[in-house]
Amino acid sequence: MRLVVVGGVAAGTKAASRARRVAPEAEITVHQEEPEPSISECGLPYFLSGTVSGRSNLIARTPEDFAGNGIDMLVRHRVEEIDAEAKRLSVLNLESGERFEDHYDRLVISTGARAILPPIPGSGLDGVFRLRFLTDADRIRAYVQKHSPKKATVVGGGYIGLEVAENLHRLGIEVSLVEAAERVAHAYGPEVAERVEAHLAEKGVTVHTGAKVEEFTGDERVRGLRFGSQTLEADLVVVGVGVEPSVKLAEKAGVEIGETGAIKVDRRMRTNLPDVWAAGDCVETVNLVSGKPAWVPLGDTANQMGRVAGTNAAIGPEDGDALEFPGVLGTGIFKVFDMGVGRTGLSEREAERAGFEAVSAGIEAASKAGYYPGAGRVFIKLICDSGTGRLLGAEAAGDGADKLIDVCATAIWGRLSCPDLVNIDLAYAPPYGPALSPVIQAATVLSGRLGRDDKGS
Amino acid sequence: MRLVVVGGVAAGTKAASRARRVAPEAEITVHQEEPEPSISECGLPYFLSGTVSGRSNLIARTPEDFAGNGIDMLVRHRVEEIDAEAKRLSVLNLESGERFEDHYDRLVISTGARAILPPIPGSGLDGVFRLRFLTDADRIRAYVQKHSPKKATVVGGGYIGLEVAENLHRLGIEVSLVEAAERVAHAYGPEVAERVEAHLAEKGVTVHTGAKVEEFTGDERVRGLRFGSQTLEADLVVVGVGVEPSVKLAEKAGVEIGETGAIKVDRRMRTNLPDVWAAGDCVETVNLVSGKPAWVPLGDTANQMGRVAGTNAAIGPEDGDALEFPGVLGTGIFKVFDMGVGRTGLSEREAERAGFEAVSAGIEAASKAGYYPGAGRVFIKLICDSGTGRLLGAEAAGDGADKLIDVCATAIWGRLSCPDLVNIDLAYAPPYGPALSPVIQAATVLSGRLGRDDKGS
Repeated sequence: MRLVVVGGVAAGTKAASRARRVAPEAEITVHQEEPEPSISECGLPYFLSGTVSGRSNLIARTPEDFAGNGIDMLVRHRVEEIDAEAKRLSVLNLESGERFEDHYDRLVISTGARAILPPIPGSGLDGVFRLRFLTDADRIRAYVQKHSPKKATVVGGGYIGLEVAENLHRLGIEVSLVEAAERVAHAYGPEVAERVEAHLAEKGVTVHTGAKVEEFTGDERVRGLRFGSQTLEADLVVVGVGVEPSVKLAEKAGVEIGETGAIKVDRRMRTNLPDVWAAGDCVETVNLVSGKPAWVPLGDTANQMGRVAGTNAAIGPEDGDALEFPGVLGTGIFKVFDMGVGRTGLSEREAERAGFEAVSAGIEAASKAGYYPGAGRVFIKLICDSGTGRLLGAEAAGDGADKLIDVCATAIWGRLSCPDLVNIDLAYAPPYGPALSPVIQAATVLSGRLGRDDKGS
Repeated sequence: MRLVVVGGVAAGTKAASRARRVAPEAEITVHQEEPEPSISECGLPYFLSGTVSGRSNLIARTPEDFAGNGIDMLVRHRVEEIDAEAKRLSVLNLESGERFEDHYDRLVISTGARAILPPIPGSGLDGVFRLRFLTDADRIRAYVQKHSPKKATVVGGGYIGLEVAENLHRLGIEVSLVEAAERVAHAYGPEVAERVEAHLAEKGVTVHTGAKVEEFTGDERVRGLRFGSQTLEADLVVVGVGVEPSVKLAEKAGVEIGETGAIKVDRRMRTNLPDVWAAGDCVETVNLVSGKPAWVPLGDTANQMGRVAGTNAAIGPEDGDALEFPGVLGTGIFKVFDMGVGRTGLSEREAERAGFEAVSAGIEAASKAGYYPGAGRVFIKLICDSGTGRLLGAEAAGDGADKLIDVCATAIWGRLSCPDLVNIDLAYAPPYGPALSPVIQAATVLSGRLGRDDKGS
């Protein structure tokens, strides 16, 4: 049995490794367009500043490591076409320029997502970058090394933009951040977004919101940008306005694309084509709270999907032992300077859109016992369904936000209600939290609003 | 309506404050034996070393604060007898020596727990202490100030003993720890206990296990101790061998005591006596995993119980809106030097004793993305029922153990199975964890052992 995997980052490498374990006799080949496989893409912003030192630290395994594990990892190989009927692939070796045919018995598509570069005049100027691949980071580092930019502008106030802003600031560059929406971190409610903006200001990053970049200016090298009547000087620009699933190859081969624009798969990660699975940032899944299709391109999810797809591809389409990937909650977290910002489930707006009557409560609490040294502050907001009390979502910002979000994600995964959380038995000691977790404090307030416990906290 | 609360630490003060809010017209009096109310007892070990500075930081609210809130907080008042028939109390003012009668319409008993001082010869020597109340901490601090002890021995390797050992070590005192059981932290499995012992050794704390102290030696002031044929020099001893519920007052009044030795209450925190509730370290509850009575005296649980008891006492016994306290999981955590050590649910031994066929998996993982600076190590062990896969318990030790335990506690609270955790959508970013949470990694291994997913990780 010959298994071919297209794309060798998180989902693809996990699928190949799992398949290797499950089907020891299989031939396994991965075609990977970038020069390195299994890049930890989430670490790239930190590589810019040297917070993560050593390029090799971001490469989980080399082609040689894969070879040692019996996996043929072909880097700089672009799959140009899939003939699903004949089970054949047309491959371009980007190094030699040579084209050749490959074939498969089973195929896993893990072509990932790519950073959007909006059609802004001047995008082609030297000094205007995206950050998606390790090679992008290499280019930015080389540019910084060569030109020692003084002023950088980050376009996009989502998590990538915010992480990049922090890391450019760490290099001693004066950083502005420009966001087209009315707020940065606009996947979050206003309470979180305001806290992020205040924190950026405190750290010396200038934020422009409601600012749609119309032009990058310069002459070969970028010198600035313009939005509305405003101009900013900038000798380095990083555009982080989002990603889109890389699905053209699959679509052309007849793979069904879902309503989110990513590849449609079932719980076994099967596409509509026989013997073709897909996993990672190129596929859509279901949001388990809304029940609706969701596209959430994140490394941890890609890894989990890759495990399911790789196992199922290895055991074959008919095996009753197939694994299933149930869906996601839309959980995510990022760090911006000293602030953790995370969410899970639905935001208030998303909950309303999904047909829930949402009710929410946000509180600010100490992140440790108030008397314990180093106690910080953290904001947490819980969102629940007013009829059933079911917890629908949570957002947090501040010290220890990661723990609070993981607790809420687990609660949603277990379909707990907000009143269920009032007496939950979490771990308390002064170095780790206040006597009652901020989750419990918020749940108590929100339960009061639900009329489930109308005596307040 | 006159509500009297006996005991003014976590449960008692929470009960009084909640009652105040729910029943604005009620007369509320708290009798508290120690000179200060609402002491943060969990912070006492850190007060010894000055890690928590300022005695007043450990007093959440003063009698004046309570008075401002319409609560009569009578400190240095010991309730000596409860006449439940007549609804009268006999009270001793410890300050004046005066005895007087009080009466109640409704009563909350929150007499807490007290530190056990085992009948070891020499326990009365100067320099042998327990640590339960702020006044105990005052005495230890005064002794350290006066005598500048060089060598301290902590008797007891549970969480209090370990916290005290760390904090005496921080004062520059040479610390030994003596534990009668074969391991320190013996509420945990051997993997955690070994890690704690290794960490103590690394920090320079000498540990003696299987060592039952037979005598404290000295002449007025303690000079050492003896176990078996061994002797240790020590000019300071802190005994932390556990606590017992303070139930004599209640028992004498006819309050039913449960099989754990603590006061028996229903989910509404009602005792068997009319108009008498109880809450906090003096009551037993149910372990929601084993279904069996459990006595887990901890500050956060006391707080939650106090809220339920105070609300219900305020609204009266017949009100359909009564709150319920469902029970506990036995979640706990402590810090010892740089290591967090936590647990939730049942240990393997407890699971077997409760009639489960337990199966477990322990893994060691990075606590952040491996390439991110400051990534530490953490051990996690999951315990589940082999038949159903239900998660029964978890233990963790190391960096970020608190987060992992809270995730597992929430999963148990939601009755999730171990296979349910394999694809759970937790929050990932390099500063906050490895791409797949150690919980997910351990769940994947354990699901393999369950035969639920026999392809391994």
